[in-house]
Amino acid sequence: MNPKAVFYEGNRTFRVGAGEAVPPEAGEVRLEVAFCGVCGTDVHIAHGAMDQRVRVPQVIGHEMSGTIAEVGVGVEGFSVGDPVVVRPLDSRGETPADRGFSHISRNLKFLGIDSPGAFQQSWTVPAFTIHRLPEGIDLKLAALTEPLAVACHDVRRAALTPGETVIVLGGGPIGLLIALVARHEGAHVKIGEINPERIEFARSLGFDAGATPDVGDGAEVVFEVSGAPAAALSMTELAAVRGRIVLVAIYPEPPPVRLFDFFWKELELRGARVYEPEDYERAIEIVASGVLPLEQLITKVEPLDRLPAVFDELASGTQGVKILVDCSA
Amino acid sequence: MNPKAVFYEGNRTFRVGAGEAVPPEAGEVRLEVAFCGVCGTDVHIAHGAMDQRVRVPQVIGHEMSGTIAEVGVGVEGFSVGDPVVVRPLDSRGETPADRGFSHISRNLKFLGIDSPGAFQQSWTVPAFTIHRLPEGIDLKLAALTEPLAVACHDVRRAALTPGETVIVLGGGPIGLLIALVARHEGAHVKIGEINPERIEFARSLGFDAGATPDVGDGAEVVFEVSGAPAAALSMTELAAVRGRIVLVAIYPEPPPVRLFDFFWKELELRGARVYEPEDYERAIEIVASGVLPLEQLITKVEPLDRLPAVFDELASGTQGVKILVDCSA
Repeated sequence: MNPKAVFYEGNRTFRVGAGEAVPPEAGEVRLEVAFCGVCGTDVHIAHGAMDQRVRVPQVIGHEMSGTIAEVGVGVEGFSVGDPVVVRPLDSRGETPADRGFSHISRNLKFLGIDSPGAFQQSWTVPAFTIHRLPEGIDLKLAALTEPLAVACHDVRRAALTPGETVIVLGGGPIGLLIALVARHEGAHVKIGEINPERIEFARSLGFDAGATPDVGDGAEVVFEVSGAPAAALSMTELAAVRGRIVLVAIYPEPPPVRLFDFFWKELELRGARVYEPEDYERAIEIVASGVLPLEQLITKVEPLDRLPAVFDELASGTQGVKILVDCSA
Repeated sequence: MNPKAVFYEGNRTFRVGAGEAVPPEAGEVRLEVAFCGVCGTDVHIAHGAMDQRVRVPQVIGHEMSGTIAEVGVGVEGFSVGDPVVVRPLDSRGETPADRGFSHISRNLKFLGIDSPGAFQQSWTVPAFTIHRLPEGIDLKLAALTEPLAVACHDVRRAALTPGETVIVLGGGPIGLLIALVARHEGAHVKIGEINPERIEFARSLGFDAGATPDVGDGAEVVFEVSGAPAAALSMTELAAVRGRIVLVAIYPEPPPVRLFDFFWKELELRGARVYEPEDYERAIEIVASGVLPLEQLITKVEPLDRLPAVFDELASGTQGVKILVDCSA
């Protein structure tokens, strides 16, 4: 029997059908996907916003966990049955103009957008994308590795030191993960958010959250995750002298920014995008150690067949934090 | 005979008159001013733009060189006749909210704006503001220490390494000094400027200068010194992946900024304002070593009596790079 797969067919349409157990070529591995989370990017694709980029039919999804089912020729150090996650970046098109920053290279391809993804039972990927998980890890929690690696990258870009005051603007999944990682690293973290559901949830995790949290003389670190033009203006006001602002949000249009504040307080702004291998290793370590309440972030787990319906439901508004798809079901 | 002084009397008016040789109190020194450069800030004051801040009558000016004329009680390590420059920052109002960044502390006072300045023959200042010059230094060139220290601070904020490509947006006095310091530190420096006179002058110093210099795959470091909204948009386009943008310009209003580029290329923006003591020491070392063509930046030297006329002449447009006032004449 063919493994099951969910295909995006363009024009906001999905089809659940028969996938393929693609035999791994040299340097590849075939995985049995355990869980795959639904990311904001997947929702964008599902709503037709990326039809220019995604070649259909395409299996999407990239926040996954799984086990190795087959090992291709020349792949060392991995065996059938090993639990793994995929770092879904293919930077084989890297050039000297990228100055060694492979993870954001100009010709970067993203697995699950530019090539097949993980919303299927069987997934064949280049071996350079996989990271080993510790034996016995909960594969449900391990499916949070990818967004957690984003948060680890963002916190690393901030060069956070224990005891610093941090404000995270935007209390969605990435904002919450950044807040959790920063708090775990010893920061005093507040969350700026206007959505009442998200405020309530952030508070349930023990954060001081609200529309205008008090940061006293300013936050040493501001994470701008909201993408709201109002945040692009307030981020510099919230920062302490010589504060660092980490820009995680995507602004399609250039918003007004108080450049005067950068001059006056000698602020720093640092962009942050996806992750590097060490962020994945750190994220895996955090998942395995159980130090963060990741279980609480999983709103529900749905079977693969239900994925088209899940995207329809997400179209109708904010619905929890993270939905996982059980790809074995 | 009283020492000569030029007083700003408010409402765009100056008066040349009798100053005072103020005896130094404990912790102060009295200086005989040799030369004092005319800064853009002085021009702003002269044109009435800072009448809200400057209490009149006030002697302005802060880009000076001179010698010690009298030493107050408790001042160690300085003697009459020593050549010195003044770092015109008074951060005695510093608080814990300033996090140790004295040079940009909230209650910072600027000598020559908030208290008497150097467009006079005799100037009494706190001893903590003075830096010793090497014996035999040219006091005319030493009057460039203050703007050169700004450039040293800006270049230090960039964490420049030899061989990097740099573009300086804005070819005025500070832009040129940044370009010269960056080139001296081993960078390949281009200058973005639209004023034909400034372009020609920058080229005379050996720089590739023009409206749109080619930076290939992007500049590792961009200095934004122009304050033009067009530069606030182009600075992120000119930067290479993970490039650093040092913001030196003052933007009274928040201009649109391509935050998307910060995310996409993981750029950094670092504000830079005035200087710290080590920037002064570095600037003095550069002046004394003669490695930069500073003499070429001095457009003319005028006697103190001519200062009111100089401000009138500057009101009519760009006139060279740096005008010095000979305060002994």
